[in-house]
Amino acid sequence: MKTKQIKRLAVLTSGGDAPGMNAAIRSVVRMANCYGIETLGFLRGYHGLLENEFVELGPRSVSNTIHRGGTILKTSRCKEFETKEGLKKAAQNLEDNNLHGLIVIGGNGTCRGAYELGKFWKGQILNVPSTIDNDVYGTDATIGYDTAVNTGVAAIDKIRDTADAHERFFLVEVMGRKAGFIGLNVGIAGGAEEIMIPEKKQSIETIHRHLCSGEEKGKKSSIIVISEGDEAGGALEIAKKLKSLNGCEYKVVVLGHTQRGGSPTAHDRILATELGAFAVEQFLKGKSGVSAGKRAGKLVLTPLKLAWSKKKSLNPFLLKLLPILST
Amino acid sequence: MKTKQIKRLAVLTSGGDAPGMNAAIRSVVRMANCYGIETLGFLRGYHGLLENEFVELGPRSVSNTIHRGGTILKTSRCKEFETKEGLKKAAQNLEDNNLHGLIVIGGNGTCRGAYELGKFWKGQILNVPSTIDNDVYGTDATIGYDTAVNTGVAAIDKIRDTADAHERFFLVEVMGRKAGFIGLNVGIAGGAEEIMIPEKKQSIETIHRHLCSGEEKGKKSSIIVISEGDEAGGALEIAKKLKSLNGCEYKVVVLGHTQRGGSPTAHDRILATELGAFAVEQFLKGKSGVSAGKRAGKLVLTPLKLAWSKKKSLNPFLLKLLPILST
Amino acid sequence: MKTKQIKRLAVLTSGGDAPGMNAAIRSVVRMANCYGIETLGFLRGYHGLLENEFVELGPRSVSNTIHRGGTILKTSRCKEFETKEGLKKAAQNLEDNNLHGLIVIGGNGTCRGAYELGKFWKGQILNVPSTIDNDVYGTDATIGYDTAVNTGVAAIDKIRDTADAHERFFLVEVMGRKAGFIGLNVGIAGGAEEIMIPEKKQSIETIHRHLCSGEEKGKKSSIIVISEGDEAGGALEIAKKLKSLNGCEYKVVVLGHTQRGGSPTAHDRILATELGAFAVEQFLKGKSGVSAGKRAGKLVLTPLKLAWSKKKSLNPFLLKLLPILST
Amino acid sequence: MKTKQIKRLAVLTSGGDAPGMNAAIRSVVRMANCYGIETLGFLRGYHGLLENEFVELGPRSVSNTIHRGGTILKTSRCKEFETKEGLKKAAQNLEDNNLHGLIVIGGNGTCRGAYELGKFWKGQILNVPSTIDNDVYGTDATIGYDTAVNTGVAAIDKIRDTADAHERFFLVEVMGRKAGFIGLNVGIAGGAEEIMIPEKKQSIETIHRHLCSGEEKGKKSSIIVISEGDEAGGALEIAKKLKSLNGCEYKVVVLGHTQRGGSPTAHDRILATELGAFAVEQFLKGKSGVSAGKRAGKLVLTPLKLAWSKKKSLNPFLLKLLPILST
Repeated sequence: MKTKQIKRLAVLTSGGDAPGMNAAIRSVVRMANCYGIETLGFLRGYHGLLENEFVELGPRSVSNTIHRGGTILKTSRCKEFETKEGLKKAAQNLEDNNLHGLIVIGGNGTCRGAYELGKFWKGQILNVPSTIDNDVYGTDATIGYDTAVNTGVAAIDKIRDTADAHERFFLVEVMGRKAGFIGLNVGIAGGAEEIMIPEKKQSIETIHRHLCSGEEKGKKSSIIVISEGDEAGGALEIAKKLKSLNGCEYKVVVLGHTQRGGSPTAHDRILATELGAFAVEQFLKGKSGVSAGKRAGKLVLTPLKLAWSKKKSLNPFLLKLLPILST
Repeated sequence: MKTKQIKRLAVLTSGGDAPGMNAAIRSVVRMANCYGIETLGFLRGYHGLLENEFVELGPRSVSNTIHRGGTILKTSRCKEFETKEGLKKAAQNLEDNNLHGLIVIGGNGTCRGAYELGKFWKGQILNVPSTIDNDVYGTDATIGYDTAVNTGVAAIDKIRDTADAHERFFLVEVMGRKAGFIGLNVGIAGGAEEIMIPEKKQSIETIHRHLCSGEEKGKKSSIIVISEGDEAGGALEIAKKLKSLNGCEYKVVVLGHTQRGGSPTAHDRILATELGAFAVEQFLKGKSGVSAGKRAGKLVLTPLKLAWSKKKSLNPFLLKLLPILST
Repeated sequence: MKTKQIKRLAVLTSGGDAPGMNAAIRSVVRMANCYGIETLGFLRGYHGLLENEFVELGPRSVSNTIHRGGTILKTSRCKEFETKEGLKKAAQNLEDNNLHGLIVIGGNGTCRGAYELGKFWKGQILNVPSTIDNDVYGTDATIGYDTAVNTGVAAIDKIRDTADAHERFFLVEVMGRKAGFIGLNVGIAGGAEEIMIPEKKQSIETIHRHLCSGEEKGKKSSIIVISEGDEAGGALEIAKKLKSLNGCEYKVVVLGHTQRGGSPTAHDRILATELGAFAVEQFLKGKSGVSAGKRAGKLVLTPLKLAWSKKKSLNPFLLKLLPILST
Repeated sequence: MKTKQIKRLAVLTSGGDAPGMNAAIRSVVRMANCYGIETLGFLRGYHGLLENEFVELGPRSVSNTIHRGGTILKTSRCKEFETKEGLKKAAQNLEDNNLHGLIVIGGNGTCRGAYELGKFWKGQILNVPSTIDNDVYGTDATIGYDTAVNTGVAAIDKIRDTADAHERFFLVEVMGRKAGFIGLNVGIAGGAEEIMIPEKKQSIETIHRHLCSGEEKGKKSSIIVISEGDEAGGALEIAKKLKSLNGCEYKVVVLGHTQRGGSPTAHDRILATELGAFAVEQFLKGKSGVSAGKRAGKLVLTPLKLAWSKKKSLNPFLLKLLPILST
């Protein structure tokens, strides 16, 4: 049978690291092994693909990794891969290694890279969406997003202790430069009084009036969750503007890179396991140029181009609830 | 308009406590408040409904509760409520308190109680499914389930340290007497070698052979996740049987009640927030005899009878992956 | 017996909140109750003492608080209390409330405030040292310090995932403007390559050379822990300077207020319990103008003036080990 | 100088694993490396010493291990090592490997084994006390103990959610067959109503009366912490006896092996780092037959025989406080 011939698959992780990447690698490797496919892992994302740096991967290579943050294959952002020369060189390396398929694990940019690579290489390319930002289309959640939200919420739980004790106002900046998924969900789950996210434009004046009305109702502390790079500026900038409006001191906490790491949640480990295994199955079925995802409880494929270019919308019910719940 | 008259709503938590119950109460109370509805909370589940013990609830009553495990309304299992007299007495109390609706927050048994109560009371009854066991039909996940799975996985991560250090075999008993949701998901996310759950019958001999084949492949430690009350007996019983087959010492850990408590995960807080608010909206629309749920990303209603009586199935893909991933 | 007459004691928390303050309040209140002493709690630190805002405290008032971060009595920093008029007013309020003693729970500034108050009030004043910074003399550790170190270390564990995955350099700013206790201990326990703390002057050039030598040995990622307000500037400033020296991009994470909150560690709960109870015992023995502490395993008293003015030194063995361990 | 000749050192971990063992290995290896000493690690405790199974250890071998539970050198309990033949064989292996010293990392039994080995081998033997039970004399705390107490307290925090929600009584069994350190400290830090530990004999009737008096004061839930193997039997046995006295249902939770694993706390990482490095320094000074420890803030040595045979006492102040605080 022809499919028996398909036997070499490469995997890599690229872009910002996300908790669950190792669980996805583990799932790809063990699923491939189960079907008699050889797997190798390029190191440091597209960089390793260009430099032809890789390791052979077997079932034991991924032992004891499902609970680890980061990625055993390392990752990077690679400028050279955005050039035609880079893409050609990558295609050549894939060819020289007798590979039939490449599974990339990463976010938006990784997905786009895979799409571009498809113009130069005839092998099968599949994406497993993994980024804390959740901004890949074609999957309800990306791998790492649930962990990042929980990390953000845990931080807010701690900050609230101080906010209550001191009766103070806090601005907490979370990740998500272009997408408010983390901001909205951390805000709801953290019981924030207000959120500022890219998708929901509101002026500093509006925020200011909202805070004032809270104070009138007897609220003595509050927490505002802000997505980094929100149009109004980062949290430090907003704190300054609010102070100029009402004279209040706003404490600022920038959660930053603590949101990227840590042991993945059960949700992220399971999603990574499902998507990794599903990608291998689809590879066996001959699929290419697609991104694996889970939507409405079903495992699905989305064309790579849609995956990185189409905007996924926020949960409108949560947006509606926020002002009601922070009453 | 007549609907303006609908203004008194009761809420209670019943059955085993689950992380996120407070987030659900908070959402019900604040959403109700937003629509001008008065809310009271019966204490200790159906027990308080029978004894007419309750507290008035306003937006401030639920401040600083979203992150707390347990339930501020207390809970219990109530035998009297299973009798006709009990149900009539409850109906009378609801009437005497001029209530138009009752939202119950709990699992299977709570849902069934609500269904039975509906035969004696003409007010609106809605269920918000909340149990760590995930065994309520009509919602992909119940409130508290995600937290329980994460608590189980965190325990397994710790146990694995010892399993690896000592090259030992561990049997870890998790909750879920009738449903293997926790067992399956903790098993997958914890990287267990094997699971024993009610839905997947397999003899001790099969488990034994599987463990032997693992040893042949060089596995020196392994973790088996077992649902409490699995047909083959609890973990202690199974350890004895395995020992009689192969002479090995199996260490047993029974996670027990540590899985019930703890601060809810972001997922459970958000689900509780959505379902609580959705239940209030549906109450306003005149709905009754239904259980709120989220399926395939959509908020939906399911008749109470279906909710407690229909069996929800496990994710078949995860069942398929387990032996492949524990290679 | 005269001591029977001593029966009213006040307690307050002041300055920056620290995990374990509630455990200390609980211990003071229950110990006092055991000896038949009435206790009241001034709200918001010295501010409440000036405004005569307080609550009566009994054994039940402190139920279910031992594990909570923040402080149920609230806290603040109070400028007015630094004036002679403020101190007199406070003394008068203590007198008017028929109080025989005041136990203050806080850090350096709180302790100094208590010392100054002693010049205007003849009642007994005792301090229970509680601050994450550990900069109170007369106790090996202050309440809250162990929790803050663990929070810092947990953050570094997460950041290391990303540092390893991306082979990057991180500067992590921890609390401790004047004292390097947090910086040194987080650095050692987090396996940091280098620390910058107030007590250990070293130029940016030295740090730069150290990092270079690490790179020569094959280190591809590293974490440097920096105390806020270190002489060389905060982490952002240092990142800029390092970049100008070697062209490298240093990622910066400022842990900030997440270190203040959170459930106290077992160590902090136990220390708070011991020091709170010990302070009440010493109050009964007529002691005043002293700060409770635990040194070399023994509960001891230190004059208030020493407690806030004398510099406590860092563990010299840890300072010596740091370069050896980051080999 | 003769000491220059001393250059080969072995290290092993033995007995029950404890969080922080890896931090101790890391410290030994890097400190030794700093002084030009070669280090090898025997695998699986004394078992590997008998089988001559070892790995060479360099500074890079211990990278990224400080935060890991378990032990990279594996561990075991070894019966053969308790025989004269075993000890002689071990001594011969040490000799054949040209070793000048052996550092053992473990608890009571490990320490005793090291003491016995000293009768057959003339090389230097040093112990680094590491066990969650804290039952090694000559150090205020053993490595792993702080982590185990925190794990126990975290479990009790979760259980309390359910105890409160259901108004129930819980018996929580913690580790410590012969020593009540974990029981007492988890009890105090968890806010338990009562503890049952080996050092504090009390009848079931006394416990029963205490619980009754609590109920009279209005306590509706309570948590009793029990050391495994307490004279009155384990938690399950005690639950039965209590039920026969008062008819109450006591829920039982046995924490078991979850207490052994997990990432070590900052305290345990630092203690492990200090003791490991200190042991190497003392090895260089020619010390032998001693156990490293930290007492009253100072690094000290204790003869091996005292270390495993002398009983360390519990903190009497905590024992006194327990009934007062659970008022």
